Amino acid sequence: MEDKIYGRNPVIEALSGDREIDKIFFQDGLTHSLISKITAMAKEKRIPYKFVNRKKLDELAEGGNHQGVVAFVAMQSYATVEDILERAKEKGEPPFILIADGLSDPHNLGSIIRTANAAGMHGIIIPKNRSVSLNAVVAKVSAGAIEHIPVAKVANIAQTIEKLKKEGVWVAGTDLSASRYHYDADLKGPLAIVIGSEGEGIGRLVKEKCDFLVKIPMIGEIESLNASVAAGVLIYEAIRQRS
Amino acid sequence: MEDKIYGRNPVIEALSGDREIDKIFFQDGLTHSLISKITAMAKEKRIPYKFVNRKKLDELAEGGNHQGVVAFVAMQSYATVEDILERAKEKGEPPFILIADGLSDPHNLGSIIRTANAAGMHGIIIPKNRSVSLNAVVAKVSAGAIEHIPVAKVANIAQTIEKLKKEGVWVAGTDLSASRYHYDADLKGPLAIVIGSEGEGIGRLVKEKCDFLVKIPMIGEIESLNASVAAGVLIYEAIRQRS
Repeated sequence: MEDKIYGRNPVIEALSGDREIDKIFFQDGLTHSLISKITAMAKEKRIPYKFVNRKKLDELAEGGNHQGVVAFVAMQSYATVEDILERAKEKGEPPFILIADGLSDPHNLGSIIRTANAAGMHGIIIPKNRSVSLNAVVAKVSAGAIEHIPVAKVANIAQTIEKLKKEGVWVAGTDLSASRYHYDADLKGPLAIVIGSEGEGIGRLVKEKCDFLVKIPMIGEIESLNASVAAGVLIYEAIRQRS
Repeated sequence: MEDKIYGRNPVIEALSGDREIDKIFFQDGLTHSLISKITAMAKEKRIPYKFVNRKKLDELAEGGNHQGVVAFVAMQSYATVEDILERAKEKGEPPFILIADGLSDPHNLGSIIRTANAAGMHGIIIPKNRSVSLNAVVAKVSAGAIEHIPVAKVANIAQTIEKLKKEGVWVAGTDLSASRYHYDADLKGPLAIVIGSEGEGIGRLVKEKCDFLVKIPMIGEIESLNASVAAGVLIYEAIRQRS
Protein backbone atom coordinates (compact mmCIF):
# COMPACT_ATOMS: atom_id res chain seq x y z
CA MET A 1 0.00 0.00 0.00
CA GLU A 2 1.34 3.38 -0.96
CA ASP A 3 -0.53 5.09 1.83
CA LYS A 4 1.37 3.67 4.80
CA ILE A 5 4.79 4.45 6.18
CA TYR A 6 6.32 2.36 8.97
CA GLY A 7 9.55 2.21 10.91
CA ARG A 8 10.84 4.94 13.23
CA ASN A 9 13.10 6.86 10.88
CA PRO A 10 10.80 6.77 7.83
CA VAL A 11 7.96 8.15 9.97
CA ILE A 12 10.21 10.90 11.37
CA GLU A 13 11.23 11.84 7.82
CA ALA A 14 7.63 11.98 6.73
CA LEU A 15 6.78 14.16 9.74
CA SER A 16 9.63 16.52 8.90
CA GLY A 17 8.69 16.81 5.25
CA ASP A 18 5.75 18.06 3.30
CA ARG A 19 3.70 14.90 3.21
CA GLU A 20 0.38 15.10 4.94
CA ILE A 21 0.06 12.50 7.70
CA ASP A 22 -3.44 11.45 8.68
CA LYS A 23 -2.93 9.21 11.65
CA ILE A 24 -0.19 7.37 13.53
CA PHE A 25 -0.41 4.05 15.35
CA PHE A 26 2.06 3.09 18.07
CA GLN A 27 2.68 -0.23 19.74
CA ASP A 28 1.28 -0.13 23.25
CA GLY A 29 3.88 -0.37 26.02
CA LEU A 30 6.92 0.02 23.75
CA THR A 31 9.30 2.76 24.87
CA HIS A 32 12.17 4.15 22.80
CA SER A 33 13.64 7.62 22.43
CA LEU A 34 12.63 7.85 18.76
CA ILE A 35 9.06 6.81 19.62
CA SER A 36 8.95 9.66 22.17
CA LYS A 37 10.26 11.98 19.50
CA ILE A 38 7.52 10.89 17.09
CA THR A 39 4.73 11.36 19.65
CA ALA A 40 6.06 14.85 20.41
CA MET A 41 6.12 15.73 16.70
CA ALA A 42 2.62 14.33 16.23
CA LYS A 43 1.34 16.41 19.14
CA GLU A 44 2.94 19.53 17.75
CA LYS A 45 1.44 18.94 14.31
CA ARG A 46 -1.92 17.96 15.83
CA ILE A 47 -1.90 14.59 14.09
CA PRO A 48 -4.23 12.09 15.77
CA TYR A 49 -2.48 9.01 17.17
CA LYS A 50 -3.39 5.87 19.01
CA PHE A 51 -1.76 2.97 20.87
CA VAL A 52 -2.64 -0.54 19.75
CA ASN A 53 -1.33 -4.01 20.55
CA ARG A 54 1.48 -5.59 18.60
CA LYS A 55 -0.79 -7.96 16.67
CA LYS A 56 -2.85 -5.05 15.36
CA LEU A 57 0.27 -3.12 14.42
CA ASP A 58 1.71 -6.15 12.59
CA GLU A 59 -1.50 -6.28 10.57
CA LEU A 60 -1.36 -2.56 9.78
CA ALA A 61 2.25 -2.92 8.59
CA GLU A 62 1.24 -6.00 6.59
CA GLY A 63 4.18 -7.94 7.94
CA GLY A 64 6.71 -5.11 7.50
CA ASN A 65 9.31 -4.28 10.17
CA HIS A 66 7.39 -1.42 11.81
CA GLN A 67 9.58 -0.93 14.93
CA GLY A 68 6.48 0.05 16.88
CA VAL A 69 5.09 2.73 14.58
CA VAL A 70 2.87 2.90 11.48
CA ALA A 71 1.77 6.19 9.90
CA PHE A 72 -1.06 6.65 7.41
CA VAL A 73 -0.15 9.15 4.77
CA ALA A 74 -2.47 11.05 2.47
CA MET A 75 -2.09 10.09 -1.18
CA GLN A 76 -1.99 13.72 -2.10
CA SER A 77 -2.07 16.97 -0.26
CA TYR A 78 -5.27 18.61 0.79
CA ALA A 79 -6.63 21.92 -0.44
CA THR A 80 -8.22 24.64 1.69
CA VAL A 81 -11.78 25.94 1.63
CA GLU A 82 -10.34 29.16 0.19
CA ASP A 83 -8.81 27.17 -2.71
CA ILE A 84 -12.25 25.78 -3.47
CA LEU A 85 -13.97 29.18 -3.42
CA GLU A 86 -11.14 30.60 -5.53
CA ARG A 87 -11.66 27.85 -8.09
CA ALA A 88 -15.32 28.80 -8.49
CA LYS A 89 -14.33 32.45 -8.88
CA GLU A 90 -11.73 31.63 -11.54
CA LYS A 91 -14.33 29.73 -13.52
CA GLY A 92 -16.85 32.53 -13.08
CA GLU A 93 -19.35 30.12 -11.55
CA PRO A 94 -21.33 30.22 -8.30
CA PRO A 95 -19.61 27.92 -5.78
CA PHE A 96 -20.90 24.34 -5.97
CA ILE A 97 -19.42 22.27 -3.16
CA LEU A 98 -19.93 18.91 -1.52
CA ILE A 99 -19.46 18.44 2.23
CA ALA A 100 -19.04 14.79 3.25
CA ASP A 101 -19.68 14.86 7.00
CA GLY A 102 -17.79 11.86 8.33
CA LEU A 103 -17.80 9.03 5.77
CA SER A 104 -16.02 5.92 6.98
CA ASP A 105 -16.10 3.86 3.78
CA PRO A 106 -13.35 4.70 1.26
CA HIS A 107 -15.54 3.37 -1.56
CA ASN A 108 -18.17 5.96 -0.74
CA LEU A 109 -15.70 8.84 -0.55
CA GLY A 110 -13.97 7.73 -3.77
CA SER A 111 -17.24 7.40 -5.62
CA ILE A 112 -18.41 10.83 -4.36
CA ILE A 113 -15.16 12.45 -5.53
CA ARG A 114 -15.74 10.89 -8.96
CA THR A 115 -19.33 12.15 -9.13
CA ALA A 116 -18.41 15.62 -7.84
CA ASN A 117 -15.78 16.02 -10.55
CA ALA A 118 -18.05 14.61 -13.27
CA ALA A 119 -20.67 17.18 -12.25
CA GLY A 120 -18.16 20.02 -12.40
CA MET A 121 -18.28 20.79 -8.67
CA HIS A 122 -15.52 23.04 -7.32
CA GLY A 123 -14.44 20.99 -4.34
CA ILE A 124 -15.15 18.60 -1.50
CA ILE A 125 -14.87 19.27 2.22
CA ILE A 126 -14.30 16.51 4.77
CA PRO A 127 -13.78 16.68 8.55
CA LYS A 128 -10.32 16.14 10.01
CA ASN A 129 -11.16 13.59 12.66
CA ARG A 130 -14.21 11.61 11.72
CA SER A 131 -13.58 10.73 8.10
CA VAL A 132 -11.72 8.29 5.94
CA SER A 133 -8.74 10.10 4.38
CA LEU A 134 -7.54 10.33 0.81
CA ASN A 135 -5.95 6.90 0.80
CA ALA A 136 -5.13 4.47 -2.00
CA VAL A 137 -8.61 2.93 -2.08
CA VAL A 138 -10.27 6.35 -2.30
CA ALA A 139 -7.91 7.31 -5.14
CA LYS A 140 -8.63 4.11 -7.05
CA VAL A 141 -12.41 4.27 -6.65
CA SER A 142 -12.39 7.93 -7.69
CA ALA A 143 -11.19 6.75 -11.12
CA GLY A 144 -8.57 9.50 -11.21
CA ALA A 145 -10.97 12.30 -10.21
CA ILE A 146 -8.94 12.88 -7.07
CA GLU A 147 -6.28 14.53 -9.26
CA HIS A 148 -8.79 17.03 -10.63
CA ILE A 149 -10.92 18.23 -7.75
CA PRO A 150 -9.64 19.85 -4.56
CA VAL A 151 -10.45 18.16 -1.27
CA ALA A 152 -10.22 20.25 1.90
CA LYS A 153 -9.95 18.75 5.36
CA VAL A 154 -11.31 21.00 8.10
CA ALA A 155 -11.22 20.84 11.89
CA ASN A 156 -14.85 21.79 12.30
CA ILE A 157 -17.58 21.30 9.70
CA ALA A 158 -20.11 23.50 11.55
CA GLN A 159 -17.67 26.43 11.57
CA THR A 160 -16.85 25.85 7.91
CA ILE A 161 -20.55 26.02 7.09
CA GLU A 162 -20.75 29.38 8.87
CA LYS A 163 -17.85 30.59 6.77
CA LEU A 164 -19.46 29.40 3.53
CA LYS A 165 -22.73 31.09 4.47
CA LYS A 166 -20.87 34.36 4.96
CA GLU A 167 -19.57 33.94 1.41
CA GLY A 168 -23.14 33.73 0.18
CA VAL A 169 -23.25 29.95 -0.24
CA TRP A 170 -26.51 28.19 0.60
CA VAL A 171 -26.07 24.98 2.57
CA ALA A 172 -28.44 22.07 1.96
CA GLY A 173 -28.41 19.10 4.33
CA THR A 174 -29.95 15.71 3.75
CA ASP A 175 -32.13 14.30 6.48
CA LEU A 176 -35.02 11.87 6.76
CA SER A 177 -36.83 14.42 8.93
CA ALA A 178 -36.85 17.03 6.15
CA SER A 179 -40.28 18.20 5.02
CA ARG A 180 -39.29 18.74 1.38
CA TYR A 181 -38.11 16.39 -1.30
CA HIS A 182 -34.80 17.32 -2.95
CA TYR A 183 -36.48 18.14 -6.25
CA ASP A 184 -38.88 20.57 -4.59
CA ALA A 185 -36.01 22.66 -3.21
CA ASP A 186 -34.18 25.39 -5.11
CA LEU A 187 -30.70 24.00 -5.77
CA LYS A 188 -29.56 26.71 -8.15
CA GLY A 189 -26.99 29.39 -7.28
CA PRO A 190 -24.09 29.10 -4.81
CA LEU A 191 -24.64 25.79 -3.04
CA ALA A 192 -23.00 23.32 -0.68
CA ILE A 193 -24.64 19.91 -0.31
CA VAL A 194 -24.00 18.08 2.98
CA ILE A 195 -23.98 14.28 2.95
CA GLY A 196 -23.97 12.53 6.33
CA SER A 197 -22.04 9.47 7.47
CA GLU A 198 -23.15 5.98 6.49
CA GLY A 199 -24.60 4.96 9.83
CA GLU A 200 -25.59 8.18 11.52
CA GLY A 201 -26.37 10.71 8.82
CA ILE A 202 -25.54 14.35 9.48
CA GLY A 203 -24.59 15.31 13.04
CA ARG A 204 -27.06 17.45 15.05
CA LEU A 205 -24.86 20.53 15.19
CA VAL A 206 -24.11 20.45 11.48
CA LYS A 207 -27.80 19.89 10.72
CA GLU A 208 -28.72 23.01 12.70
CA LYS A 209 -26.24 25.07 10.70
CA CYS A 210 -27.76 24.07 7.33
CA ASP A 211 -29.96 26.64 5.59
CA PHE A 212 -32.46 23.98 4.69
CA LEU A 213 -32.93 20.21 4.74
CA VAL A 214 -34.11 17.94 1.96
CA LYS A 215 -34.93 14.26 1.72
CA ILE A 216 -34.89 11.77 -1.11
CA PRO A 217 -38.22 9.90 -1.46
CA MET A 218 -38.08 6.38 0.00
CA ILE A 219 -40.87 4.36 -1.54
CA GLY A 220 -39.84 0.75 -0.85
CA GLU A 221 -38.88 -1.14 2.30
CA ILE A 222 -35.35 0.26 2.48
CA GLU A 223 -35.04 3.50 4.42
CA SER A 224 -31.89 5.00 2.99
CA LEU A 225 -29.61 5.00 -0.02
CA ASN A 226 -25.93 4.28 -0.11
CA ALA A 227 -24.15 7.57 0.71
CA SER A 228 -22.50 7.89 -2.71
CA VAL A 229 -25.78 7.19 -4.53
CA ALA A 230 -27.60 9.78 -2.38
CA ALA A 231 -24.87 12.30 -3.21
CA GLY A 232 -25.21 11.53 -6.93
CA VAL A 233 -28.99 11.96 -6.85
CA LEU A 234 -28.72 15.37 -5.13
CA ILE A 235 -25.80 16.65 -7.19
CA TYR A 236 -27.49 15.79 -10.48
CA GLU A 237 -30.80 17.30 -9.41
CA ALA A 238 -28.85 20.53 -8.85
CA ILE A 239 -27.29 20.10 -12.33
CA ARG A 240 -30.76 19.62 -13.84
CA GLN A 241 -32.03 22.79 -12.20
CA ARG A 242 -29.00 24.71 -13.46
CA SER A 243 -29.35 23.49 -17.06
CA MET B 1 -18.77 -17.49 2.90
CA GLU B 2 -22.33 -18.64 2.61
CA ASP B 3 -22.27 -18.44 -1.13
CA LYS B 4 -19.83 -21.25 -1.83
CA ILE B 5 -20.21 -25.00 -1.66
CA TYR B 6 -17.21 -27.31 -2.05
CA GLY B 7 -16.50 -31.00 -1.95
CA ARG B 8 -17.90 -33.59 -4.38
CA ASN B 9 -20.94 -34.79 -2.45
CA PRO B 10 -22.08 -31.37 -1.18
CA VAL B 11 -21.94 -30.04 -4.74
CA ILE B 12 -23.90 -33.05 -6.06
CA GLU B 13 -26.53 -32.47 -3.35
CA ALA B 14 -26.80 -28.82 -4.27
CA LEU B 15 -27.15 -29.75 -7.95
CA SER B 16 -29.92 -32.22 -7.12
CA GLY B 17 -31.84 -29.78 -4.92
CA ASP B 18 -33.57 -26.49 -5.40
CA ARG B 19 -30.64 -24.19 -4.79
CA GLU B 20 -29.62 -22.09 -7.72
CA ILE B 21 -25.99 -22.70 -8.73
CA ASP B 22 -24.28 -19.91 -10.60
CA LYS B 23 -20.94 -21.37 -11.56
CA ILE B 24 -18.71 -24.37 -10.85
CA PHE B 25 -14.92 -24.51 -10.74
CA PHE B 26 -13.02 -27.79 -11.20
CA GLN B 27 -9.40 -28.60 -10.59
CA ASP B 28 -7.65 -28.96 -13.92
CA GLY B 29 -6.39 -32.49 -14.68
CA LEU B 30 -8.15 -34.18 -11.76
CA THR B 31 -10.24 -37.18 -12.79
CA HIS B 32 -12.74 -38.97 -10.57
CA SER B 33 -16.10 -40.62 -11.24
CA LEU B 34 -17.96 -38.10 -9.07
CA ILE B 35 -16.26 -35.19 -10.87
CA SER B 36 -17.49 -36.65 -14.17
CA LYS B 37 -20.96 -36.94 -12.66
CA ILE B 38 -20.88 -33.27 -11.59
CA THR B 39 -19.75 -32.05 -15.03
CA ALA B 40 -22.56 -34.07 -16.62
CA MET B 41 -25.12 -32.56 -14.23
CA ALA B 42 -23.75 -29.05 -14.83
CA LYS B 43 -24.04 -29.55 -18.60
CA GLU B 44 -27.59 -30.78 -18.27
CA LYS B 45 -28.57 -27.82 -16.11
CA ARG B 46 -26.62 -25.40 -18.35
CA ILE B 47 -24.55 -24.16 -15.42
CA PRO B 48 -21.33 -22.50 -16.58
CA TYR B 49 -18.15 -24.23 -15.41
CA LYS B 50 -14.45 -23.82 -15.73
CA PHE B 51 -11.19 -25.66 -15.03
CA VAL B 52 -8.58 -23.88 -12.93
CA ASN B 53 -5.30 -24.89 -11.30
CA ARG B 54 -5.16 -26.26 -7.79
CA LYS B 55 -3.79 -23.05 -6.28
CA LYS B 56 -6.73 -21.06 -7.61
CA LEU B 57 -9.20 -23.65 -6.35
CA ASP B 58 -7.59 -23.66 -2.89
CA GLU B 59 -8.10 -19.91 -2.80
CA LEU B 60 -11.73 -20.20 -3.88
CA ALA B 61 -12.38 -22.76 -1.15
CA GLU B 62 -10.53 -20.55 1.33
CA GLY B 63 -8.51 -23.49 2.58
CA GLY B 64 -11.45 -25.91 2.76
CA ASN B 65 -11.16 -29.52 1.55
CA HIS B 66 -12.66 -29.00 -1.88
CA GLN B 67 -11.82 -32.40 -3.45
CA GLY B 68 -11.42 -30.69 -6.80
CA VAL B 69 -14.71 -28.80 -6.99
CA VAL B 70 -16.11 -25.49 -5.76
CA ALA B 71 -19.63 -24.28 -6.63
CA PHE B 72 -20.93 -20.74 -6.30
CA VAL B 73 -24.47 -20.72 -5.05
CA ALA B 74 -27.01 -17.91 -5.26
CA MET B 75 -27.93 -16.48 -1.88
CA GLN B 76 -31.58 -16.67 -2.76
CA SER B 77 -33.58 -17.90 -5.68
CA TYR B 78 -34.20 -15.78 -8.71
CA ALA B 79 -37.54 -14.48 -9.91
CA THR B 80 -38.78 -14.41 -13.51
CA VAL B 81 -39.57 -11.44 -15.71
CA GLU B 82 -43.21 -12.48 -15.42
CA ASP B 83 -42.98 -12.23 -11.60
CA ILE B 84 -41.74 -8.67 -11.98
CA LEU B 85 -44.53 -7.64 -14.37
CA GLU B 86 -47.07 -9.35 -12.11
CA ARG B 87 -45.78 -7.36 -9.15
CA ALA B 88 -46.41 -4.08 -10.97
CA LYS B 89 -49.91 -5.27 -11.90
CA GLU B 90 -50.72 -6.22 -8.30
CA LYS B 91 -49.68 -2.77 -7.14
CA GLY B 92 -51.68 -1.15 -9.93
CA GLU B 93 -48.57 0.69 -11.13
CA PRO B 94 -46.92 0.93 -14.56
CA PRO B 95 -43.91 -1.43 -14.61
CA PHE B 96 -40.72 0.28 -13.43
CA ILE B 97 -37.76 -2.02 -13.95
CA LEU B 98 -33.98 -1.87 -13.90
CA ILE B 99 -31.87 -3.93 -16.31
CA ALA B 100 -28.25 -4.28 -15.21
CA ASP B 101 -26.49 -5.44 -18.38
CA GLY B 102 -23.44 -7.28 -17.15
CA LEU B 103 -22.14 -5.74 -13.92
CA SER B 104 -19.02 -7.45 -12.59
CA ASP B 105 -18.68 -5.62 -9.25
CA PRO B 106 -20.88 -7.02 -6.45
CA HIS B 107 -20.78 -3.62 -4.72
CA ASN B 108 -22.42 -2.04 -7.74
CA LEU B 109 -25.13 -4.68 -8.06
CA GLY B 110 -25.83 -4.59 -4.31
CA SER B 111 -26.05 -0.81 -4.27
CA ILE B 112 -28.35 -0.83 -7.33
CA ILE B 113 -30.66 -3.36 -5.67
CA ARG B 114 -30.82 -1.08 -2.62
CA THR B 115 -31.63 1.98 -4.73
CA ALA B 116 -34.18 0.12 -6.87
CA ASN B 117 -36.06 -1.01 -3.78
CA ALA B 118 -35.85 2.42 -2.13
CA ALA B 119 -37.35 3.91 -5.30
CA GLY B 120 -40.20 1.39 -5.32
CA MET B 121 -39.13 -0.33 -8.56
CA HIS B 122 -40.76 -3.65 -9.33
CA GLY B 123 -37.70 -5.69 -10.15
CA ILE B 124 -34.21 -6.04 -11.56
CA ILE B 125 -33.12 -8.09 -14.54
CA ILE B 126 -29.55 -9.37 -14.95
CA PRO B 127 -28.00 -11.58 -17.65
CA LYS B 128 -27.21 -15.21 -16.91
CA ASN B 129 -23.65 -15.33 -18.16
CA ARG B 130 -22.02 -11.95 -17.95
CA SER B 131 -23.00 -10.74 -14.51
CA VAL B 132 -22.05 -11.05 -10.90
CA SER B 133 -24.69 -13.20 -9.16
CA LEU B 134 -26.67 -12.66 -5.98
CA ASN B 135 -23.82 -13.60 -3.67
CA ALA B 136 -23.07 -12.73 -0.05
CA VAL B 137 -21.40 -9.41 -0.90
CA VAL B 138 -24.32 -8.31 -3.07
CA ALA B 139 -26.74 -9.23 -0.26
CA LYS B 140 -24.73 -7.29 2.32
CA VAL B 141 -24.28 -4.16 0.19
CA SER B 142 -28.00 -4.21 -0.69
CA ALA B 143 -28.66 -3.55 3.03
CA GLY B 144 -31.40 -6.18 3.04
CA ALA B 145 -33.14 -4.90 -0.10
CA ILE B 146 -32.42 -8.20 -1.83
CA GLU B 147 -35.16 -9.74 0.31
CA HIS B 148 -37.73 -7.26 -0.93
CA ILE B 149 -37.22 -6.87 -4.67
CA PRO B 150 -37.33 -9.68 -7.24
CA VAL B 151 -34.21 -10.22 -9.33
CA ALA B 152 -34.61 -12.16 -12.59
CA LYS B 153 -31.71 -13.76 -14.42
CA VAL B 154 -32.27 -14.13 -18.14
CA ALA B 155 -30.37 -15.92 -20.89
CA ASN B 156 -30.62 -13.04 -23.32
CA ILE B 157 -31.12 -9.39 -22.40
CA ALA B 158 -31.93 -8.32 -25.99
CA GLN B 159 -34.75 -10.86 -26.20
CA THR B 160 -36.04 -9.83 -22.78
CA ILE B 161 -36.17 -6.22 -23.95
CA GLU B 162 -38.26 -7.31 -26.95
CA LYS B 163 -40.63 -9.07 -24.55
CA LEU B 164 -40.91 -6.01 -22.29
CA LYS B 165 -41.62 -3.80 -25.29
CA LYS B 166 -44.47 -6.10 -26.31
CA GLU B 167 -45.89 -5.56 -22.82
CA GLY B 168 -45.90 -1.82 -23.44
CA VAL B 169 -42.75 -1.04 -21.45
CA TRP B 170 -40.45 1.70 -22.82
CA VAL B 171 -36.78 0.84 -22.62
CA ALA B 172 -34.24 3.59 -21.94
CA GLY B 173 -30.54 2.89 -22.37
CA THR B 174 -27.66 4.97 -21.07
CA ASP B 175 -24.92 5.81 -23.52
CA LEU B 176 -22.34 8.55 -23.96
CA SER B 177 -23.38 8.81 -27.63
CA ALA B 178 -26.96 9.76 -26.70
CA SER B 179 -28.15 13.14 -27.97
CA ARG B 180 -30.41 13.85 -24.99
CA TYR B 181 -29.72 14.36 -21.32
CA HIS B 182 -31.64 12.08 -18.97
CA TYR B 183 -33.73 14.95 -17.61
CA ASP B 184 -34.84 15.97 -21.10
CA ALA B 185 -36.33 12.54 -21.77
CA ASP B 186 -39.82 11.43 -20.74
CA LEU B 187 -39.27 8.86 -17.99
CA LYS B 188 -42.90 8.57 -16.90
CA GLY B 189 -45.11 5.57 -17.58
CA PRO B 190 -44.03 1.91 -17.98
CA LEU B 191 -40.24 2.05 -18.06
CA ALA B 192 -37.15 -0.15 -17.97
CA ILE B 193 -33.79 1.58 -17.45
CA VAL B 194 -30.74 -0.24 -18.82
CA ILE B 195 -27.40 0.27 -17.05
CA GLY B 196 -24.29 -1.05 -18.80
CA SER B 197 -21.30 -2.86 -17.38
CA GLU B 198 -18.55 -0.96 -15.56
CA GLY B 199 -15.97 -1.08 -18.30
CA GLU B 200 -17.89 -1.42 -21.52
CA GLY B 201 -21.28 0.16 -20.98
CA ILE B 202 -24.28 -1.36 -22.76
CA GLY B 203 -23.57 -3.94 -25.48
CA ARG B 204 -24.24 -2.99 -29.11
CA LEU B 205 -27.13 -5.40 -29.60
CA VAL B 206 -28.85 -4.34 -26.40
CA LYS B 207 -28.32 -0.67 -27.29
CA GLU B 208 -30.04 -1.19 -30.63
CA LYS B 209 -33.04 -2.73 -28.91
CA CYS B 210 -33.57 0.28 -26.62
CA ASP B 211 -36.41 2.65 -27.49
CA PHE B 212 -34.21 5.64 -26.74
CA LEU B 213 -30.84 6.52 -25.27
CA VAL B 214 -30.00 9.14 -22.68
CA LYS B 215 -26.79 10.46 -21.19
CA ILE B 216 -25.91 12.07 -17.88
CA PRO B 217 -24.07 15.40 -18.30
CA MET B 218 -20.32 15.07 -17.71
CA ILE B 219 -18.95 18.49 -16.92
CA GLY B 220 -15.56 17.78 -15.33
CA GLU B 221 -12.55 15.74 -16.40
CA ILE B 222 -14.07 12.36 -15.54
CA GLU B 223 -16.06 10.77 -18.36
CA SER B 224 -18.39 8.44 -16.51
CA LEU B 225 -20.02 7.83 -13.16
CA ASN B 226 -19.81 4.72 -11.05
CA ALA B 227 -22.53 2.34 -12.35
CA SER B 228 -24.56 2.41 -9.14
CA VAL B 229 -24.44 6.21 -8.96
CA ALA B 230 -25.52 6.49 -12.62
CA ALA B 231 -28.43 4.13 -11.88
CA GLY B 232 -29.43 6.23 -8.86
CA VAL B 233 -29.37 9.46 -10.87
CA LEU B 234 -31.60 7.98 -13.61
CA ILE B 235 -33.98 6.19 -11.27
CA TYR B 236 -34.58 9.30 -9.16
CA GLU B 237 -35.05 11.51 -12.21
CA ALA B 238 -37.84 9.11 -13.19
CA ILE B 239 -39.25 9.39 -9.64
CA ARG B 240 -39.15 13.19 -9.87
CA GLN B 241 -41.04 13.13 -13.16
CA ARG B 242 -43.65 10.79 -11.66
CA SER B 243 -44.21 12.90 -8.54
